[in-house]
Order: sequence, then structure tokens, then C-alpha cells
Amino acid sequence: MAAIVRLDDLDDPRLRDYVDLRDVQLRLRLESERGLFLAEGEKVVRRAVESGHRPRSFLMSPRWLDGLADILDASDAPCFVLDDAAIERLTGFHVHRGALAALERPDLPTPEQVLADARRVVVIEDLADHTNVGAIFRSVAALGFDAVLLSPRCADPLYRRAIKVSMGSVFWLPYARVEDWYGAPDLLRAAGYTTYAMTLADDSVPIDQVDHDVERLAVVVGSEGHGLTARWEQGADHRITIPMAADIDSLNVASSVAVACWELRARS
Amino acid sequence: MAAIVRLDDLDDPRLRDYVDLRDVQLRLRLESERGLFLAEGEKVVRRAVESGHRPRSFLMSPRWLDGLADILDASDAPCFVLDDAAIERLTGFHVHRGALAALERPDLPTPEQVLADARRVVVIEDLADHTNVGAIFRSVAALGFDAVLLSPRCADPLYRRAIKVSMGSVFWLPYARVEDWYGAPDLLRAAGYTTYAMTLADDSVPIDQVDHDVERLAVVVGSEGHGLTARWEQGADHRITIPMAADIDSLNVASSVAVACWELRARS
Repeated sequence: MAAIVRLDDLDDPRLRDYVDLRDVQLRLRLESERGLFLAEGEKVVRRAVESGHRPRSFLMSPRWLDGLADILDASDAPCFVLDDAAIERLTGFHVHRGALAALERPDLPTPEQVLADARRVVVIEDLADHTNVGAIFRSVAALGFDAVLLSPRCADPLYRRAIKVSMGSVFWLPYARVEDWYGAPDLLRAAGYTTYAMTLADDSVPIDQVDHDVERLAVVVGSEGHGLTARWEQGADHRITIPMAADIDSLNVASSVAVACWELRARS
Repeated sequence: MAAIVRLDDLDDPRLRDYVDLRDVQLRLRLESERGLFLAEGEKVVRRAVESGHRPRSFLMSPRWLDGLADILDASDAPCFVLDDAAIERLTGFHVHRGALAALERPDLPTPEQVLADARRVVVIEDLADHTNVGAIFRSVAALGFDAVLLSPRCADPLYRRAIKVSMGSVFWLPYARVEDWYGAPDLLRAAGYTTYAMTLADDSVPIDQVDHDVERLAVVVGSEGHGLTARWEQGADHRITIPMAADIDSLNVASSVAVACWELRARS
């Protein structure tokens, strides 16, 4: 059962995992070094814990204690209690639904493990925007794809903003980071996947005209600005596109992935 | 040709259209009362003007004057020049790509006019989130739908955040607001449209199993929280759903609309 610890000193070292939540660069470094991630809001804290992540501590204002009582009862991590104004000073912003938790960053499976257990995956290359990464996880999960692979420079799915936009699907949807990104096309091929790179290249095939009756399938997307690297433009089995109305900027990357997951879904 | 007016007094009444851009409630009231909307960023300012909207004034720091010279040359509206720090104090935030314009809010066409000129429309009911409204416009435009209808309580497509997320498609994609919302199903029917309400109701038809070989088609979506009102749940010709993987929260509303526009696109 979590010890309830009322604090009033914002410099208390036990609160150091919660400082300056609006400073993205600081947080990315700090969370990575300390091996933690942050869950924000009663529902997200609950989902993080219920999906098996191990809390280091909780931080909330008094009025959230009752709603999360079952979660706190089942945990050995301490629960720090501050009033809402103090939490806002500590974290640097107004915390949505006033509860936070710092949790152990999980060990990720290897790409090989993820690919072995899946049939439909999305591969994300160098997407720097946490909102887009979270939105892609949400779409992938909702549309019945099984897993996600990330390039080394792709944004962190366990960053607070990505978690929120993903509706917590980053907690349970399997994903892995591929360290040898140059070898990624071969890695997928060796695991039995047919790869479909989403591109705006002139000779790409409209997504509704490509054969996708395959056992294992990977949709590969790049960043909104630069698109896929040459390695993937040249290394994928198929290059596909969503036909756009004339003179239109492309779809948002998360919407593109939603359309692709829908069109290329397993139909058996 | 726009007069270039260097200012240093932030209380100058000529700057009053640009105050407190982070205060959403204030801005919504102020922009509505004054009949204006705001474009932010060099590219957005350019698109707003080039799509035929009439500028009242421009506001930028000196380094944006060259890039927008052709736009300024073609306009009679004054261009106020402040340094970046002063613009930030005036507007309350760091302006993305340091140029702004205040433009006349256009007279919208009537719903009847919009429906007469279109074949595929999206109807949005009570969606309060500007990001989602902008994202829907972007998807609708990219996927070749022709127009959007809005309920009275739907968020303003010409609010700064919606414009940005829409990639400027709100400037040229036809849309109208339906004042008599109760009458909206009949309005669409009278204009020859078959309506497809997106719903999570148990008896809705999976979107890939509904007949959509119709001349004129409307996709109707509600808010993420509450879904559609009973009027639309009962009044639409078809109730459709995107089948979701078990136990998953639904797709984001903009991604749902992207999938629906894709699946229900005109195929002739």
C-alpha cells in the first residue's frame, strides 16, 4: 500500500522526477537518464499501472486520492500530496485532472520479437512530433494492426504528450526501436513481411490498386516534411500513395496511416 | 501598395486587432464582433490573401517584409512593423514565422448553395475543438470531398489554430453553417443527399458493407465525447461505423473522417 506523504517544500528531492514538465528537451534527457516516464491525469495513471508498468511514485492533490485509492492500495510506491497551486509551480503548468505518476521505463522487446508475434505492423521513420507519434499509435491500435517499429530518431512514445494523444495505447501496443536502421528493410524481409512504403513519388501505386493479400505486412511512413529516406524509397517491396485531390498538401501523417491501416487491413 | 508603418507604442489603437492571441475566449468574441480573422505565419498570410480574403492590416517584424513584398504591393491595407519582442508582448506568444494579418471575415454561402455545388460533403455536429475541425478540413480537402457543413455550436474554422492545422484549406474549401440544425437532415435530403451518420451504436453498419453508390453523399460526424445527437442518430439514412479492434477507444475524429472520406469516395 502506497504511503501517503504530504509535502510542502518544492525543493524536496523526492519531487525531482516532476520538475519543469513543459521543458521538452530537459524532460527527454531527464526521463531517459533516470529510466522513467510520466503519466498525467487520473485515467492515464490508472491505465499505465493497470497495463503492468511499475510506479516509482505518485503526485497528486488531495481530491484525487479517493478516485485512485485502488491503484494506490495495490502499490508500494509513495504518493506525494501537494495542493494544486504547488503542483502547478513544480511542474510548470496546469496538470490535467491533477494526478501524476512517475513510472519505470519498461525494457522494450527486440524488433525480432515484435515482428514474430505480429502480422500487421506500422514502421515509423524519423517522425519528431510527439503528437503525431501518439496519434499513429491510437490509429494503429484502433484499426487492428498489431505493433509498431520505430527508427532511432523517431520521437518517444512514452513522452507525456504522446501518451495522452495515443489514449494510452502506447502502454500495451507492442513496439520496438530498430537500432540498425539501414538494415531495417532486410530485417522485415527476413521476418516474412512484405513492406509498403508510403511516398509521394510519381511512380508510386495508388493504395487501392496494390496487392496486399499477404500473410505479413508492414506500412512504412516517414516524416511530414522530408518523407522517407532513400533507403526506404528504394528498399521497400511496394511504394504506395493515397491519391490526393489536385493541388492539395498531403494528409496529416496520422490520418494517412489511418487510411493505410484501413485499406491494408487483414480481411480474413 | 501597403503603407509600411513602423510603430513602437503597443497601445496604439491600430494594433488592437492583434492583442492577446492566446486568450481563446477573448479572441473568439473579439474576432466575431469585429468581423475579422487572423492569419499567422508567412505561408498562411500568403494563402489567405491569395485565396481572395481581404486584409485589413498586416503586422510583422522587419525581416518578413521582403518575403511578403508581392503580397504587400498588391494590397491597400497598412503593414505595421514591430520588432519580434514587441510582437510577442502584444500578442502574448511567440509568433510562428513572425508575420500576421487581420483579414475581413468572409460572408459564407448558404447551406443550400454549398450543397448545390457539391457531391460529397462532410457534416460536423458540435465539435468544439479547433484542432479537430482544422484537421477534418485538411482531410476532406486532400481526399477530394467538396465541402463542409457545420452545426451552430461547431468550432470556428477561421480561428487561428484551425487555420493552421487545416494547412489553409479553410480558405478555399466551401463551407456553411446550418442555423436550423434540427432541420439539417431534411435540408440534406431535399438537396438530394444520402446521409451516413458515423456512430458507435450497436446496430450500425460496418463502413465497408454499406451501399455508397449514390450521386450525392454526406458523412455526418459528432463530437468525440458525446457522439451524434439523437436527431442525427435517428434522422440519417444510414448509420455506419469503422470496425474497431476489441476494447479500443475509438479513432480520433479527424482520422475517422479521413477513413470515411476514403472509403466513401466517388469512384467514377
